[in-house]
Amino acid sequence: MPHLPEDKKRILTRVRRIRGQVEALERALEGGEPCSAMLQQIAAVRGAANGLMGEMLEIHLKDELVSGDTTPEQRGAQMAEIGHLIRAYLK
Amino acid sequence: MPHLPEDKKRILTRVRRIRGQVEALERALEGGEPCSAMLQQIAAVRGAANGLMGEMLEIHLKDELVSGDTTPEQRGAQMAEIGHLIRAYLK
Amino acid sequence: MPHLPEDKKRILTRVRRIRGQVEALERALEGGEPCSAMLQQIAAVRGAANGLMGEMLEIHLKDELVSGDTTPEQRGAQMAEIGHLIRAYLK
Amino acid sequence: MPHLPEDKKRILTRVRRIRGQVEALERALEGGEPCSAMLQQIAAVRGAANGLMGEMLEIHLKDELVSGDTTPEQRGAQMAEIGHLIRAYLK
Repeated sequence: MPHLPEDKKRILTRVRRIRGQVEALERALEGGEPCSAMLQQIAAVRGAANGLMGEMLEIHLKDELVSGDTTPEQRGAQMAEIGHLIRAYLK
Repeated sequence: MPHLPEDKKRILTRVRRIRGQVEALERALEGGEPCSAMLQQIAAVRGAANGLMGEMLEIHLKDELVSGDTTPEQRGAQMAEIGHLIRAYLK
Repeated sequence: MPHLPEDKKRILTRVRRIRGQVEALERALEGGEPCSAMLQQIAAVRGAANGLMGEMLEIHLKDELVSGDTTPEQRGAQMAEIGHLIRAYLK
Repeated sequence: MPHLPEDKKRILTRVRRIRGQVEALERALEGGEPCSAMLQQIAAVRGAANGLMGEMLEIHLKDELVSGDTTPEQRGAQMAEIGHLIRAYLK
């Protein structure tokens, strides 16, 4: 999880907002709302998921590659894993 | 909402799966899981949101542009709204 | 290709703009420009590719599902192929 | 541009492949190919642009945050700019 408490809190706020959006979507579907309105809500969920990805990736880079006295070797080991994530994110 | 009950059911199943993924993400964050694991879970949520968008858009096109005896004018009126959605989806 | 000449022209303009952006990117790389500037140019190419996808998909839906006196069966046959495209676009 | 010659070469290969794909798309449009074939080619261009973004971002992180003896402050200054890029990439 994010190292700084304020980063963790920001991520938690984003995750809860997405949960609220998904719950609203479920209610809209059960309540028979028009498809066009639901399609807009789904686009908002996707946008929020992208925003969460970006913020979490930034925090992860900051925690693992930027902060602290580290050697190039230590950062290189972290980078291998980060490379996998970036490739999964950009496809 | 989708016109056919089986379409509605498929969408509901997808929405509930996403809700489960987001709830698991919230627990992972509160439980102090490593960022790299959470980043993978977030990628899965985004992928599921994309899948939901695609299926819902397909159902909407089928319900509004394909099914039933409609005139080009009626379909054209629906298409104006669909155009807005597609532009929101592909950006 | 798009049925209406004005649609074809709009798509051609977009494709040529993307070609210009990609050529500029190649020159930037060969000229030793900073990575951060190149990363912004790449984001612009991806954005332009998304815009092209959206416009082309809209034209295709208009040409195949909206225009003309067609039966639900004819439109259903077109829709099968369109469904494949949408799933490829939203992943 | 990428610091290592082999990284630069890999990026150049990707950029040239995209240029070839866009030129083929232009010919397809001028040659009157079916929209469905063109829509698949456009999806391939977008996929290639995403792949290029991912590889370039990875190289940039390696060059600026991983390699060399740097201080947390130096890496933090680089990170500010990288944060902007990531937000542009994930939206």
